[in-house]
Amino acid sequence: MKLKIKKDLLLENLNKVSKAIATKDLIPTLAGIKFDLDKKGLTLTASNNDITIQKFIPIDKKSINVEKEGVVILHGKDIVEIIRVIPAEEINIEVFDETKVLIYTDDESIKYDLNVINKNDYPNINLEKSENFITITTKDLLSIVKETAFATSNDTSREVLTGISFKINGDLLECVATDSYRLARKNLRLDKTVEENYNLIIPGKNIIEFSRILDSSEEEVKLHVFNNKILFESNDLLFQSRLINGNYPPTNKSIPEEFSLTITGNLSQLYNVIEQASILTTDKEKNIVSLSTKGDLLTVKSVSNEKGKAEMKMNIKKNNKEDITIAFSAKYMMDALNALSTEEVEMSFVGEVKPIVIKNTKDDGLLQLVVPIRTY
Amino acid sequence: MKLKIKKDLLLENLNKVSKAIATKDLIPTLAGIKFDLDKKGLTLTASNNDITIQKFIPIDKKSINVEKEGVVILHGKDIVEIIRVIPAEEINIEVFDETKVLIYTDDESIKYDLNVINKNDYPNINLEKSENFITITTKDLLSIVKETAFATSNDTSREVLTGISFKINGDLLECVATDSYRLARKNLRLDKTVEENYNLIIPGKNIIEFSRILDSSEEEVKLHVFNNKILFESNDLLFQSRLINGNYPPTNKSIPEEFSLTITGNLSQLYNVIEQASILTTDKEKNIVSLSTKGDLLTVKSVSNEKGKAEMKMNIKKNNKEDITIAFSAKYMMDALNALSTEEVEMSFVGEVKPIVIKNTKDDGLLQLVVPIRTY
Repeated sequence: MKLKIKKDLLLENLNKVSKAIATKDLIPTLAGIKFDLDKKGLTLTASNNDITIQKFIPIDKKSINVEKEGVVILHGKDIVEIIRVIPAEEINIEVFDETKVLIYTDDESIKYDLNVINKNDYPNINLEKSENFITITTKDLLSIVKETAFATSNDTSREVLTGISFKINGDLLECVATDSYRLARKNLRLDKTVEENYNLIIPGKNIIEFSRILDSSEEEVKLHVFNNKILFESNDLLFQSRLINGNYPPTNKSIPEEFSLTITGNLSQLYNVIEQASILTTDKEKNIVSLSTKGDLLTVKSVSNEKGKAEMKMNIKKNNKEDITIAFSAKYMMDALNALSTEEVEMSFVGEVKPIVIKNTKDDGLLQLVVPIRTY
Repeated sequence: MKLKIKKDLLLENLNKVSKAIATKDLIPTLAGIKFDLDKKGLTLTASNNDITIQKFIPIDKKSINVEKEGVVILHGKDIVEIIRVIPAEEINIEVFDETKVLIYTDDESIKYDLNVINKNDYPNINLEKSENFITITTKDLLSIVKETAFATSNDTSREVLTGISFKINGDLLECVATDSYRLARKNLRLDKTVEENYNLIIPGKNIIEFSRILDSSEEEVKLHVFNNKILFESNDLLFQSRLINGNYPPTNKSIPEEFSLTITGNLSQLYNVIEQASILTTDKEKNIVSLSTKGDLLTVKSVSNEKGKAEMKMNIKKNNKEDITIAFSAKYMMDALNALSTEEVEMSFVGEVKPIVIKNTKDDGLLQLVVPIRTY
């Protein structure tokens, strides 16, 4: 293998695939990045036991110059660091005897002579595509991640809740994340109807990682679904994740649909009063604040025996004359509000022990739910 | 106590004194900030066992409105957080019965009712000033910290080396920091001659903390020295630190003054080639790179059995025809270069086992020293 490549182009792509480098060196080969150069371009691949990321850089005379095709596996962390610190515009990469790689600048003032990872030790990575892929716009996929992923659980003892449930039925996609104390649900319509029905659980942290390296200027993402894995395809980027086995708990029954009271208010103001009150709570006390209405006035309170009391007021609108007093985790409510990209928010109550439903007044497809906390 | 104060003014000053809040709640009262309001202004004080910070905010009708004088001690972390999140321009603080404090906005939409820390539990803090203070320009004090403090030791088993040695003799100030593997020395002349001679060891991390909150637009800093403590005074800011007891080791004898070779080169280029080579070293291998000269060419090399080799070249000037090959810690050399604010750097050698002396070609008062590492 021998090529000359623009530093910035290589670094940008290495940064993306490097997210899949194994950080704990259990299997040293998984700490590598595979460089595969052929007539069409340079393919970079990194893979750990959880995800695989592959990025293809097509040949373009201005940015890549291929002298000899070939394959080499380099230590991922080192090669990213090396390309980052080389101040030159173009970098030469040349393999000798399959065991050594020279990385150098044109004037040879910078020269690295790197050991490679044996190709035979590198796992065979299968990034197969499906003919019956699902298409989703990049914009929708990024919304799903922003609006639901935060509500997944970190508790691996109940693994299904660490993932986002994707249910596809015709052109309807329903995404749900819950840690059983709060829940986020996003329903949307796909541009193209899907023939098969799907019921998947995608690991939350993996899809967050994918959303971070996804180029938002790309129109759409293709989802290739297999028995125990999913491959996301966005132009020259492939991102494969395992799927979580198991049955996602039915959640629709726990979401109230009829309410005794719905209030409407300014989202950032509501976020602020909850944040202001939360200062006088502690994690130990579960970060509890109480919310109560009286006429058009909303009061958020907190009490800490140790620290003192806080009381914040703001104006809201109500859909009837009912009033409510309810307590909940300030952190969970702030997360839910944070996920709604809207000016005006709608909060609906059934009673003080029933889940609170929070919605964007302009997007009926998105719902956030927070379970109240009994304080007596 | 009752006052109204501009939020931004209060927050800025709280942020400064809060650096002295005790973070481990061994003595809960030390986690407090003392508010002391009289006719002249508001004095904020925080103190832990290591440092005390006091900031005075003079009365100014536009920014502070005093209704009643008094003293109160509030939980430091909470009060900083509360003032930060209140979106109002002005904040009211009012003490009731010496046990409760109300913090509120003019429209009372935000209201905190805080428990206070008992005044009688708060330690009596003595921030006495000396008549024979030492005066140093703010610019010089900030230079000393930037150019020497990084070379102090983190190893508390030899406490004197965790401090910066300040020796004052007439109008000459000599500051030295060393962890015994590298050394930084800054000599400068004070504007005013000091009558007494001083020989102090100031804890490195404390003077770094002071330099961070020091207002660089103030002309000068007064140093009030006592037996076991030092008080820095900069306009309305007082910063007191304990001094380290003990004898600082004599260092001047270990600094070579005659050299077999002096090279001169571009500082940022030299920093870059060392950083580039250092990627193929490990902390375990002590981050070693080697430097060698041949004519006007300087080569920096690194070798790692595991990772490979690196070789970087750059042009330099020499003061004679001697050549050198010497190895050292890349990290220590980069720290030393980083502390020299200059374009051109001068590096002097006695031999491959003797300390390397690094200087700014334009500032004879500043010297950096790095001890070489034998690689054979």
